[in-house]
Amino acid sequence: MFDRPNAAALSHYDAGMPDAPTKPGLTYAASGVDIDAGDRAVDLIQSHLRRTHGPRVLGKHGAFAGMFRLDYNEKLFQRNYKDPVLVACTDGVGTKVKLAIQLGVHDTIGQDCVAMNVNDMIVQGAEPLLFLDYVGLHKVVPEQMERVVKGVSDGCAIAGCALLGGETAEMPDVYAAGDYDLAGFAVGVVELKKVIEGHERVEPGDVILGLASSGVHSNGYSLVRAVVEHAKLKLDRVYDDYADDPLHAGRALGDVLLEPTRIYVKPIVSLLRGYKVKRPISGMAHVTGGGLPGNLNRALPPDIDAKVDRKSWDVPPLFRFLQRHGDIDEDEMFRVFNMGIGYTLIVRPHFADAVADKLRRAGQTVHVLGKAVRGKGRVRLV
Amino acid sequence: MFDRPNAAALSHYDAGMPDAPTKPGLTYAASGVDIDAGDRAVDLIQSHLRRTHGPRVLGKHGAFAGMFRLDYNEKLFQRNYKDPVLVACTDGVGTKVKLAIQLGVHDTIGQDCVAMNVNDMIVQGAEPLLFLDYVGLHKVVPEQMERVVKGVSDGCAIAGCALLGGETAEMPDVYAAGDYDLAGFAVGVVELKKVIEGHERVEPGDVILGLASSGVHSNGYSLVRAVVEHAKLKLDRVYDDYADDPLHAGRALGDVLLEPTRIYVKPIVSLLRGYKVKRPISGMAHVTGGGLPGNLNRALPPDIDAKVDRKSWDVPPLFRFLQRHGDIDEDEMFRVFNMGIGYTLIVRPHFADAVADKLRRAGQTVHVLGKAVRGKGRVRLV
Repeated sequence: MFDRPNAAALSHYDAGMPDAPTKPGLTYAASGVDIDAGDRAVDLIQSHLRRTHGPRVLGKHGAFAGMFRLDYNEKLFQRNYKDPVLVACTDGVGTKVKLAIQLGVHDTIGQDCVAMNVNDMIVQGAEPLLFLDYVGLHKVVPEQMERVVKGVSDGCAIAGCALLGGETAEMPDVYAAGDYDLAGFAVGVVELKKVIEGHERVEPGDVILGLASSGVHSNGYSLVRAVVEHAKLKLDRVYDDYADDPLHAGRALGDVLLEPTRIYVKPIVSLLRGYKVKRPISGMAHVTGGGLPGNLNRALPPDIDAKVDRKSWDVPPLFRFLQRHGDIDEDEMFRVFNMGIGYTLIVRPHFADAVADKLRRAGQTVHVLGKAVRGKGRVRLV
Repeated sequence: MFDRPNAAALSHYDAGMPDAPTKPGLTYAASGVDIDAGDRAVDLIQSHLRRTHGPRVLGKHGAFAGMFRLDYNEKLFQRNYKDPVLVACTDGVGTKVKLAIQLGVHDTIGQDCVAMNVNDMIVQGAEPLLFLDYVGLHKVVPEQMERVVKGVSDGCAIAGCALLGGETAEMPDVYAAGDYDLAGFAVGVVELKKVIEGHERVEPGDVILGLASSGVHSNGYSLVRAVVEHAKLKLDRVYDDYADDPLHAGRALGDVLLEPTRIYVKPIVSLLRGYKVKRPISGMAHVTGGGLPGNLNRALPPDIDAKVDRKSWDVPPLFRFLQRHGDIDEDEMFRVFNMGIGYTLIVRPHFADAVADKLRRAGQTVHVLGKAVRGKGRVRLV
């Protein structure tokens, strides 16, 4: 509805037509769509798109679609692909958006949206190139939209991809006043011979590494919100329960729960680029809905299990706090939440130390979770 | 939430975890997310994805992201790009989805979603490669989701692109019972030197061709629904008012209003491929929200007007019927609806007849709408 390709202005809404019909009768505006607010929102967000645009982004304002040069022959930023495979995925932020709305904090949910997509894509060895967002909402509040897109743009900057466009759809009959939904779409590229498909490569003895999450990330928020309501937790209160976690200590619960999903693109892409010939990574998994047991299994062949030692890392106190207040079963916790591990790598044993070192030097907290053993394609938490 | 890359099954939801927690307390299911229904929906829609997959689609079930080979060297389906530009866009179907819900007809709205995206992309000379859909909804009704994705798959088949994946997000707190929103993302490719950017190339004297729409397409449905309510029109009634239109005659109003958006990909892509060296097309526009005056202008340089003769085509009776019942001003009609013209081409005068012929032979109804003249970048309806 409010098309935003290449930070396009809504040029078509001010194309010399009268602002109001010259005789009474139904109009588009009267049927509930606020064109001026849409225009203003588009103006506000243009700079957020532009700051993610490198020289590979082509095209002008007002284009129907965003354009991105795949190969790039100029000396700076040179990129040339021999047999490029496009990798694409879409994901939303789920009901975390309800928490953002409830708290009136809109500038980080966009990073969650980017994270959910780009973290999925790097699992297959891809490097994110471009991103587009879709926002469905009740009514455009330009300043709020600007905050949302700022967050998307922040996420794109962290992931090193271009925010190529987006769409804002004002649908007052679908979304309640104040509500919105946010979905994203990412495209990346990987050389055919560098595609990672864990199913085939994982062998017994491979080492499983886990990268720390920043918190709940973007899954399980229906349950989080049920716990908050059930236990009458106060979102504006700083709880001591998670004071031992340096990332969460001293922050209000709502703020901690809105902590944006960590984006693992740069450490993972840089790690993969570092190995020109050798292939030390046999599989990876982004830990989303389904938790460790429901995502790490996606990297396993049918005759291999992932044996994960629950004592190999400390579950962050935030999760224990939620578990206690919701009286949630331990298995359910691991099935719904990341429990502190946001991303996993399955690594050839010979390379495990080197890979862990590289990731630590890239700023990640790395845990050796366990190893691959003969089995049935399952994740065994022991 | 219910991830559907590469028709992936929700393998992570049945990964050997107990179905229910072993002690009382909050669970993810109790917090409102129906995992079984999600599983069943994913099963039902797999075949719809697969039928759009050619040999360029890679990857297995359960992958985190869909994969598509850009170059393809095998003899059949050979494709090789010298300097490929990725073209990407996102769009939803707006409140047309409310009409589909109201009528309980869910199997064509997906084609609308594909059309809104791929028709945007071909404007820049691109050939659509892949598509992903996002459905946000109150609660997964597997058979209904299957209908929605069937429509998306139909659209992809018409557009010749692969439905590479999708996402179904169950968000009972955002969407009301029975409601859903549908958005799509498309990626295509065009050789750098074949990119069409009308802004630069359109010259006075260029001929403007219009391709017939199939009806209201996917814009202006807030106004359509306001008219239906205002005039107490009956969606299940066959009105004589549009009996002169062979496409709409004898059909109930609701059915006519749900007629899916025409997809212009094959005639346009085939037309462009036919000209290896010459570049007869100086600009194109997909007629969406904003109508002819608000979209054709996006193909114009700042010193050129498009002079469109309103008498060069007959506005389909459906639009006059809506106008009469809504007492809608004529300019407002042209600003909101396509008025019978769904896609426009600006063509070098020397090639106008040949281009129109080719499009007619490809099954399109072509109108010569007018021509480019010196001006201010506006569309002048005369």
